[in-house]
Amino acid sequence: MVVARHSTLCSRKAVGVRTLAKSYVGKRLSDVPTPAFLVDKQIVLNNCQNMLKKCAELGIKLRPHVKTHKTEEAALLQTGGQKKCITVSTFREAEFFADCGWDDILLAFPLAPFHIGRAKSLADHISTFHLLVDNVDSATALAKSPIPSGKASWSVFIKVDTGYARAGVRWSDTEMAVAICKALQPSVKLQGLYAHCGDSYHTSSLTEVSAVRNRTAERVVKLGEELVQRGFACPIISIGSTPSMSASVNAEDHKVLQKLNEAHVGNYVFYDLQQASLHSCSLDDVACRVMTRVIGHYPHRKQMLIDCGFTGLTKQGLNANKFVAGYALFENHPNLKLIEMSQEVGKVEGVDGNLDFDQYPVGTELLLYPYHACATASQHPVYYIHKDGLVEEEWKPIRGW
Amino acid sequence: MVVARHSTLCSRKAVGVRTLAKSYVGKRLSDVPTPAFLVDKQIVLNNCQNMLKKCAELGIKLRPHVKTHKTEEAALLQTGGQKKCITVSTFREAEFFADCGWDDILLAFPLAPFHIGRAKSLADHISTFHLLVDNVDSATALAKSPIPSGKASWSVFIKVDTGYARAGVRWSDTEMAVAICKALQPSVKLQGLYAHCGDSYHTSSLTEVSAVRNRTAERVVKLGEELVQRGFACPIISIGSTPSMSASVNAEDHKVLQKLNEAHVGNYVFYDLQQASLHSCSLDDVACRVMTRVIGHYPHRKQMLIDCGFTGLTKQGLNANKFVAGYALFENHPNLKLIEMSQEVGKVEGVDGNLDFDQYPVGTELLLYPYHACATASQHPVYYIHKDGLVEEEWKPIRGW
Repeated sequence: MVVARHSTLCSRKAVGVRTLAKSYVGKRLSDVPTPAFLVDKQIVLNNCQNMLKKCAELGIKLRPHVKTHKTEEAALLQTGGQKKCITVSTFREAEFFADCGWDDILLAFPLAPFHIGRAKSLADHISTFHLLVDNVDSATALAKSPIPSGKASWSVFIKVDTGYARAGVRWSDTEMAVAICKALQPSVKLQGLYAHCGDSYHTSSLTEVSAVRNRTAERVVKLGEELVQRGFACPIISIGSTPSMSASVNAEDHKVLQKLNEAHVGNYVFYDLQQASLHSCSLDDVACRVMTRVIGHYPHRKQMLIDCGFTGLTKQGLNANKFVAGYALFENHPNLKLIEMSQEVGKVEGVDGNLDFDQYPVGTELLLYPYHACATASQHPVYYIHKDGLVEEEWKPIRGW
Repeated sequence: MVVARHSTLCSRKAVGVRTLAKSYVGKRLSDVPTPAFLVDKQIVLNNCQNMLKKCAELGIKLRPHVKTHKTEEAALLQTGGQKKCITVSTFREAEFFADCGWDDILLAFPLAPFHIGRAKSLADHISTFHLLVDNVDSATALAKSPIPSGKASWSVFIKVDTGYARAGVRWSDTEMAVAICKALQPSVKLQGLYAHCGDSYHTSSLTEVSAVRNRTAERVVKLGEELVQRGFACPIISIGSTPSMSASVNAEDHKVLQKLNEAHVGNYVFYDLQQASLHSCSLDDVACRVMTRVIGHYPHRKQMLIDCGFTGLTKQGLNANKFVAGYALFENHPNLKLIEMSQEVGKVEGVDGNLDFDQYPVGTELLLYPYHACATASQHPVYYIHKDGLVEEEWKPIRGW
């Protein structure tokens, strides 16, 4: 069977229907199509200022991670206005920020030899581009590669696994770290060590979060000291995770943390239900919501539908937060529970089994706290930055790889 | 504390680093950055031809759903090359296709009164735009709204709930359907009834899928006949879901299905692990994969990392398919299991607890069958269409709302 000859693909004739380019800046939030990712800029600013202040007080340089939002606008709030000193999670992010004139970029993704060509393009074009290595093969491959244009060397951090068991050299495996240091010479400069305390997400109290953070710091500091003893300069010792860097620091903690030089932390920009459940923040610190609207009532099963499905929220976090059962928390409506989602709609029930439909006429706008802001933000091609019910800005994140 | 004055946002200076606009058409698949959403166009074509043929044999018009891929290219394969007669899931999709010159578009999303302005813009600009209603309020609001330019009336289907319990008028609630028909008059034309047999996803055998499909058809046909008896023309009776329309049709089934006029079905374009688990297809019919690469070995815990996290696959489908435990199936590597994902990386173990690291050197390309193609495709800004190891086309889906 032969398929019919295809019509020509269009080049967006724009026959008059609204297009993707339509801007809502200056419009009311109530004009914005739903589901919509809303960001309260003042809260983002507060979160960013607090993290900058905290790191300054600890004497730790903040190298904020931009993976949660992937926008220049939020990155500038994280850095306090400077277009430098950030952490990214993908080459695409690194290239986007480099293209936009940012510098001193750390790609916090384990380097594999096949990445080196793309890494060189980046390193050729900005002053400082740091990579992450966690094995001898990658270190060797990098050391053998042509040094980027105008540079004296490549620049790397060694990724250290302090217990999270995802990527990294085990903190106790000094010999492996030494072998990597040897493999890097002479054409790769070791900046230091990088540890992500992802195990802080597996805790159930602030005390445990602090314990994970301090343990992470102690382990990575110890490995750094051992490398120095073995003759390898290792000036920067860094850790990061939003729970660990959001938890308070007492005098005892301070003694541990003062040996660190750098922190890489990202989710705090928006925070989310997961972070609030981990006591990293209060609900008032959560800067983002998914706005959705009621689209139908089904009284015979005591349910209503909203126009937010998994493409607007993701299915992460079912029953995983401490505030409400279901996939997310409805702001100011503790009796609402999002029990199920398909691609574009969500099913809502009452926590107590009942719904007062008169309270939620079709068209009612509802705001969802997402469980995982990094995941939810990545579903949205635009973030609506609002104040006093108006859209002040639209932020458009970079996507893809 | 006052944040420093912000540097100016860039307008993508393109300092020489690769940008989003880079095309891989004509390049080898092995040049494509991972994770990457790969599509085998021949399989898509086969799936599309098979569905066209099946519907033709049943005497049912196929109105394919484009929500799985959201591209013109795949939609043209679904329609057999005509830029008309499709189903969409969002206004954004409808607007995109309308802008591209498509016509006869059904927005299969329950209409709420607040949608009517946007619906009118669409209906003003194409010849035929159908809406879906499932309650009297929406029907009334539409009937009271100005009729689109150059049209004799609005055009709607009534959404029928045949047991799935998501949206729709219950199939047994004739009075509700009659009330809607009355509310639509005189300015809205009823095209017919629309039922989605989503309950076919809750089955465990082909027999059950066929039973759900036939029951759906019987119920929606019955409601249609009752409306006719009550004096309302209801020419089109439609059902759809990929499991139900993929299941085979015997003589007995045919008697039931011949009373249908239209089918709206979408996932079959790509199929996925969920559909293969439901016997809608074989694994050979699955047209999409996520290509990923091995980025690290961790022999002390018998694990390796791949460069596909939840942003490249989604977390849907853990242990939910019949082919392998974990989040997805690795093509040709039945011993690999994707046990965990964070934003950009995935953790892989052996099904038998062991991994032969020599078989998977860093850089090895692996192909993942996604559990839910609609969800996974929506994570990717570009689909790489390949043949004989080369990228032939890049398809760029529409996103957002």
